[in-house]
Amino acid sequence: MTETRVSSHKKEVVIGFDRPFCVIGERINPTGRKKLAAEMAAGDFSTVEADALAQVAAGAHMLDVNAGIPLADEPAILARTIQLVQSLVDVPLSIDSSIVAALEAGLAVYQGKPLVNSVTGEEERLEAVLPLIRKYGAAVVAISNDETGISEDPDVRFEVAKKIVERAADHGIPRSDIVVDPLVMPIGALGQAGNSAFRLLRRLKEELGVNSTCGASNVSFGLPNRHGLNAAFLCMAAASGMTSAIMNPLHAEEMTAILGSDVMMGKDVNCRRWLTSFREPQAEGADGGRAERRRRRAG
Amino acid sequence: MTETRVSSHKKEVVIGFDRPFCVIGERINPTGRKKLAAEMAAGDFSTVEADALAQVAAGAHMLDVNAGIPLADEPAILARTIQLVQSLVDVPLSIDSSIVAALEAGLAVYQGKPLVNSVTGEEERLEAVLPLIRKYGAAVVAISNDETGISEDPDVRFEVAKKIVERAADHGIPRSDIVVDPLVMPIGALGQAGNSAFRLLRRLKEELGVNSTCGASNVSFGLPNRHGLNAAFLCMAAASGMTSAIMNPLHAEEMTAILGSDVMMGKDVNCRRWLTSFREPQAEGADGGRAERRRRRAG
Repeated sequence: MTETRVSSHKKEVVIGFDRPFCVIGERINPTGRKKLAAEMAAGDFSTVEADALAQVAAGAHMLDVNAGIPLADEPAILARTIQLVQSLVDVPLSIDSSIVAALEAGLAVYQGKPLVNSVTGEEERLEAVLPLIRKYGAAVVAISNDETGISEDPDVRFEVAKKIVERAADHGIPRSDIVVDPLVMPIGALGQAGNSAFRLLRRLKEELGVNSTCGASNVSFGLPNRHGLNAAFLCMAAASGMTSAIMNPLHAEEMTAILGSDVMMGKDVNCRRWLTSFREPQAEGADGGRAERRRRRAG
Repeated sequence: MTETRVSSHKKEVVIGFDRPFCVIGERINPTGRKKLAAEMAAGDFSTVEADALAQVAAGAHMLDVNAGIPLADEPAILARTIQLVQSLVDVPLSIDSSIVAALEAGLAVYQGKPLVNSVTGEEERLEAVLPLIRKYGAAVVAISNDETGISEDPDVRFEVAKKIVERAADHGIPRSDIVVDPLVMPIGALGQAGNSAFRLLRRLKEELGVNSTCGASNVSFGLPNRHGLNAAFLCMAAASGMTSAIMNPLHAEEMTAILGSDVMMGKDVNCRRWLTSFREPQAEGADGGRAERRRRRAG
C-alpha cells in the first residue's frame, strides 16, 4: 500500500497503512503560546530547543515546525528554527506555515526530504505550493477545504482531497507524497465531527489510497478531560485508516492510545514496543512512572 | 437500523448502532474467581450482591450473570443468583451459561426480556438453545464458531454468524434479537486478532445489520497495562461498529474509553454524559477523583 517517505539528513521515516502510526510533535508552534512567540521573535530559541529534545525523547517520529508570529520576519525565523532543530535531533520535520515565502525559505535550508504543511484545495494556494513541492522533492499535507470553505459533508471533503491529488499529479507529484488532513472540527461544537472524520478517513484509505494526518487535539477543544477524548479519537481514527497525527507526544494518555492502537492493528510486532513501554523500568522516564505503577497495581 | 431490545421488570435497554454503547458488567462470574465460586456454592451471595450494586453504580447498562461452578448444581444456583440480582438492581441481565439446563432455569425465573449468553454455530447447540430463545422471547448472543472450531479468518467467522442468523429466522427469531460475538482472541498470542475483529465487526454491521458484543478484556490477556490496551480496543471496536461489550465497568480507563467513543460517534448528545462525568463534582465517586484532578491539571 501507499508509503510516504520523508527524511532528515540522518533518518528516514515511512508513513503507511502497514507501518506504526507516525507521531508528529506539535509543540514547536508559537500560535497561542505568547511567551514562545516573544522569545522566537527576539532570537531566543531555548524553548524551541527544549521542546525539540523533549518531544523526540517522548517518542515523536517527526516534528512539526511553525514560526507564525504576527509582524515578525516569518521566513527568516522559520529557516533559522529548522536549521537549529535539525542540528539537535535527527527526526524528519514538517515545515509548517500559511505563508508561501516561509515554506520556501524553510525548504531552501532543509536537509533531507521534509513534509510541507500545507496546501489546500484553493486554486491560488495549489498553484503556489505544488511547484515548490515538485522543485524540492518534498511531501505535502493536503487540507480538504477550498474556496467554498470547509464542508460539513465528508463526501464533499473527499472530492476536494481527490482534486488536490489529481492536481499534484499534473505537477508530477505522486499520490504517495500527499498526506491528506481531513480537518477535524471540535466535537463540542459539531456532534458529527467524529463520524465525518472517520468516514472521510475510510474513503481516503480505501478509494484514494492516500496517507492521512490531522491536528488531533482540536477535536476536544472546549471540553473537560481533553486527554481522554483525544485518546479515544486517536484510536478510532487509526481504526478508520489514519496513519499519522500532529499531536503532543508529551501526554501519556495520547501516547498510550497510539501504542495501543498499533498493538491492535498488528503494527507492533510481538507487542515489543508495548512491552518495552509498560514492563521495563526504562519506560518510567517517558510516562512519568505510570507504567510501573500500573504494573504494580495489576500484579 | 437494527435495535435489540432487552428489559428487566422495570427497565428497557436498547442496543443499537445509533444508541450509546451498551456496557454489560462481567463481574458476576465465578470462572477464575475461586473465592466467589466457593461462596456461591455454599449459598453465600454477599459478593454477588456487592458486585451487582457496584457495577450498576459505575455505569453498567446490563449485568452478565454466570454461575459456572464445577460439580455444583448450576441450574439452581444460576436461577437463585438471577432472582437475587433482579431484586437488587433494575438493569436487564444477560443469562450466561454453557449448560442448556442452566439457561432454561434462568429463563424460567427471569422477569422481563433477557439476553441469553450464548448460542454457537454448532448444530447441537443451535437446536438446543434457539427453541428456548423462541419460547421465552429472549435475545441471544451468537458466538461465531462451529464444529470446525474458531477460524482465524474473519470471513469464515462471518459465514458462521450468518448461518446462526438464518437458523434463528427458521425458528421465528428476528435478527434484531441476535447479538453476534466475533470472539476476540488475545492479541499477545495472535497479532492479527484486532484486525480480524475489526473487519468482522464492520461486516456484521454493514452486511448483516446485526448488533455485536464481546468479552473485551480477553484481548489483553498476558500483557502489561491491560487497561490501556482494553481502552484502545474498545474505542477501535466501537469505531468498527461494535455496539456492546461484556466488560468490567469498575475500571476508569475502559469506561472513559466508552464515554469518549460515544462522544466521538455523536451518541452523547451535547456531550452531556461526558460533561457530567468529568466536570461535575458528582463524578468523583465513579472514577476515584481522576476527572477532578485532570480538570485542575488542565486549568
